[in-house]
Amino acid sequence: MRTKVIFDTDPGVDDSAALLFLNATPHVDLVGITTMFGNSDIDTVTRNALYLKHRFSIAAPVARGAGKSLAGAASLPPVHIHGQNGLGDIALKHTGLPELDPRPAHQFIIDEVRARPNEIILLAVGRLTNLALALSEAPDIAPLVKEVVIMGGAFGVAGCNGNVTPVAEANIIGDPEAADIVFGAPWPVTAIGLDVTRQVIMGPVELERLERGGGEPGRFIVETSRGYRVFHAQFGIDGYYVHDSTAAAYIVDRTLFGVRRGPVRVVTEGIAIGQTIQRDWRTPYPPGEWDTAPDQQVATAVDARRVLELLVGTHIPMLATSERKTA
Amino acid sequence: MRTKVIFDTDPGVDDSAALLFLNATPHVDLVGITTMFGNSDIDTVTRNALYLKHRFSIAAPVARGAGKSLAGAASLPPVHIHGQNGLGDIALKHTGLPELDPRPAHQFIIDEVRARPNEIILLAVGRLTNLALALSEAPDIAPLVKEVVIMGGAFGVAGCNGNVTPVAEANIIGDPEAADIVFGAPWPVTAIGLDVTRQVIMGPVELERLERGGGEPGRFIVETSRGYRVFHAQFGIDGYYVHDSTAAAYIVDRTLFGVRRGPVRVVTEGIAIGQTIQRDWRTPYPPGEWDTAPDQQVATAVDARRVLELLVGTHIPMLATSERKTA
Repeated sequence: MRTKVIFDTDPGVDDSAALLFLNATPHVDLVGITTMFGNSDIDTVTRNALYLKHRFSIAAPVARGAGKSLAGAASLPPVHIHGQNGLGDIALKHTGLPELDPRPAHQFIIDEVRARPNEIILLAVGRLTNLALALSEAPDIAPLVKEVVIMGGAFGVAGCNGNVTPVAEANIIGDPEAADIVFGAPWPVTAIGLDVTRQVIMGPVELERLERGGGEPGRFIVETSRGYRVFHAQFGIDGYYVHDSTAAAYIVDRTLFGVRRGPVRVVTEGIAIGQTIQRDWRTPYPPGEWDTAPDQQVATAVDARRVLELLVGTHIPMLATSERKTA
Repeated sequence: MRTKVIFDTDPGVDDSAALLFLNATPHVDLVGITTMFGNSDIDTVTRNALYLKHRFSIAAPVARGAGKSLAGAASLPPVHIHGQNGLGDIALKHTGLPELDPRPAHQFIIDEVRARPNEIILLAVGRLTNLALALSEAPDIAPLVKEVVIMGGAFGVAGCNGNVTPVAEANIIGDPEAADIVFGAPWPVTAIGLDVTRQVIMGPVELERLERGGGEPGRFIVETSRGYRVFHAQFGIDGYYVHDSTAAAYIVDRTLFGVRRGPVRVVTEGIAIGQTIQRDWRTPYPPGEWDTAPDQQVATAVDARRVLELLVGTHIPMLATSERKTA
């Protein structure tokens, strides 16, 4: 059975690659695309979502979401990473774009979850503002959501650090209050954080395969990621971290990951703002801030080679067929 | 040459073992013992320091220090760890105790450092309140201190957690403002945190050797640590973590440890309060809270077997002699 997914995203170079993967994989039924500010401002990322829907004939509707965090902050777009237009500054045609869904993103989420109880996975790869707004407006939806999978956080696995501060990852520090609400809600959350996404590097070999055999999606991924590769090259990485698509891969094949369980809290103030902290149940602590938070899952291990094979192979017809047989 | 050390301590079961090690090792010239609240209240730990000075004929004077943190908090003594009397509830005679130094601890530190510029190591194994008070009163002493070695913090090495919260270690969360001041001052700090001290476990074999061959200090360590071992047994540990003596061992033999350099900040608010965070220079970050803090050292590795051999052997005459030759 195909998994129903609402993709909450701020495209974004790696967001758009994840969207193309979700659209191409036979395991996912994409029921909606919701946008929020982050990799670019809300106007730009929403237009990019409509552009992707149009260019790649994606059936799912697009609903526009939050333009600022719960605390009211709209961070500066990281144009040095995703380009001025959020898609690596490739030439974009903006004519003939489809209409937006009339509802704001959080209302779209509420309506779809209520209409399909226990069927929908929320895959959120940006700031968690839309999900927090949905919970705030309709707390009843939490137990009706099948699962929440996020790309976000850095949990110190093998000394993994943040990417905005020594402890904070970009999606979480972009709206720490929203993230703390999402981790604390009574729905099952799995966080695919930097601990694992930094192990999955799309390198020259994979990009070459996508360019030659991946059709229009493959060429689009290669084209939009050129600037992204330049950004990564300054850290000595030949290729780029596959943050968002790795979270998407989790939905398709759980066996690619190792996880651990425990309550997660998010730091919302001070120098550690944006840090995600999971309590370890093996260590006894005095009563504290984690005691009333529900257990959630954090990815601690990943089979990077197989993730890359899944992400690339899905766009290459022959390989995708043989992979489907072994999946 | 013997290293001049002021031992800033809150005895405390493991504090007193560290003091006996410092007193026994030929490498250290103990010039003072300063006390602060922590493992017990300030009256109790100061009386314990005087008791140890008296019982073990320690020449160094004892100066009484802070009874509360910079923010004014005096935490509840952890009597389930160190006993009601701070020394594992062994019978203590309080008659005939020597006089206290008339100065408060921070003034003692200021005076001694000024009198012996670039000669003194401050070994601080409790809350860092006295050191912060000394800096606040006399900022000129920072460059005159040879080195500051602390037992404190948890730096996430190999996923190492805190012992009071998932991120905070007891000495640091006991006075986070003081710790942030100490790490930020222009003196060289080395932090011996839980990352390494949890690897050094004084087990039945070592305690047996101390009891049989370690003379009065050896028997005292065994006697005072009985309750401490019961506390550790509930976590499945046969023996106990050698927090403070491991920091003392660093002064005697640097080759027992691996360290890394980078600025350290301490979280002073929110759910991560008391967390020690060292910036990793390999990862590029936007301008942030670590930029103006000086590089300090954090212990990331320890040769636990050799540390135990040093701590036990120092109290066993024959072995201590042969070790001195190879040191």
